[in-house]
Amino acid sequence: MQKVTFEISMSLDGFVAGPEPSLEDPLGRGGERLHEWILGLKSWRASHGRSGGEEGLDSDLLAESIAAGGATIMGRNMFSGGEGPWENDPNPDGWWGDEPPFRHPVFVLTHHERESQAMQGGTTFHFVTTGIEAALEQARAAAGDKNVAIAGGADVAQQYLRAGLLDEMQIHVVPLLLGAGVRLFDDGLGAEDQPRLERVRVIDSPAVTHLRYRVVK
Amino acid sequence: MQKVTFEISMSLDGFVAGPEPSLEDPLGRGGERLHEWILGLKSWRASHGRSGGEEGLDSDLLAESIAAGGATIMGRNMFSGGEGPWENDPNPDGWWGDEPPFRHPVFVLTHHERESQAMQGGTTFHFVTTGIEAALEQARAAAGDKNVAIAGGADVAQQYLRAGLLDEMQIHVVPLLLGAGVRLFDDGLGAEDQPRLERVRVIDSPAVTHLRYRVVK
Repeated sequence: MQKVTFEISMSLDGFVAGPEPSLEDPLGRGGERLHEWILGLKSWRASHGRSGGEEGLDSDLLAESIAAGGATIMGRNMFSGGEGPWENDPNPDGWWGDEPPFRHPVFVLTHHERESQAMQGGTTFHFVTTGIEAALEQARAAAGDKNVAIAGGADVAQQYLRAGLLDEMQIHVVPLLLGAGVRLFDDGLGAEDQPRLERVRVIDSPAVTHLRYRVVK
Repeated sequence: MQKVTFEISMSLDGFVAGPEPSLEDPLGRGGERLHEWILGLKSWRASHGRSGGEEGLDSDLLAESIAAGGATIMGRNMFSGGEGPWENDPNPDGWWGDEPPFRHPVFVLTHHERESQAMQGGTTFHFVTTGIEAALEQARAAAGDKNVAIAGGADVAQQYLRAGLLDEMQIHVVPLLLGAGVRLFDDGLGAEDQPRLERVRVIDSPAVTHLRYRVVK
């Protein structure tokens, strides 16, 4: 059955990027340390068109996620870091290179219309200006039997979570204290407005602890 | 070897108490849900002088922590919720009843001197006005070969962590979003000022995921 999923690396103190993310430093100060565990994995390298890399628990887990996804949704910030009209975006082609690792349709949430853009390797970026539900509807259709992955950032994931549109969430807890930065879960609504979670699976690897939860509807 | 340890229940979104903790509601709105997993456990009930309760992974883990501790340190807020001179404290005898569950010496950090107070069941409260290092020194001596447990609150734990005085930290991640409240890890210093952590052990129980880290000195 098709699911809407979200997964992200989070420091033990709750940050998914370091402080002051910018065009030059999209993960914020120190934020690249959140992703160190993933960069050497065989499955990550394969998705980026590279050979070699470490096999094992973490690589298998990532391979599972990659295989499960049939479409991706991301915020404008995660696509290019820009805002406003595209002609003023200093990074209009985005951060993902000529051959992005998604290899399926990617729906970018934006307030500014733009033609779809087919990339090498199977990724096509579609730009959706009609909101998170419309983007999800398009992504669901594009994904077929596979899952729709909400890629981020944190604000986009929170919007889907609070709208009751997320089925599963996997948090990769990195044994790291960032001290400051962008929180996955910002202060917001009280407990009564939060969805209920059920633990689905915990995978403990030396580098990271992978916590998977089901969002109870 | 004697260790200085800290453990606490934390919601997935990083809170260790709900919003607006008060004398009437010391865990804040919704905060009692963080501790539901512990209240029915056999080892928790035994520490509170009660019989019965659930056996299993969680109970064994708690029993292990209880057996390992020879002295406890807590903040004034965790003792009574009060501040200022003791004669003005609306809750001067604290929250812990006539027979507190610690059953060993407990050192309470306070700015206001007070005589030690022996309770039933082996707990004696000592009031330390000379800072976190002095309290630790006294607790270390009192604990003998056993560990010193930093009981909390979050601010006290952070002080010990950042002073490099903590050896191990165990976080019980509760599959719960509180949305607001008291964070274990507040925004603070940047990554470069944070201690480095190493994962020691992950125990996955149906109710809670227990993450234990060593603080690298």
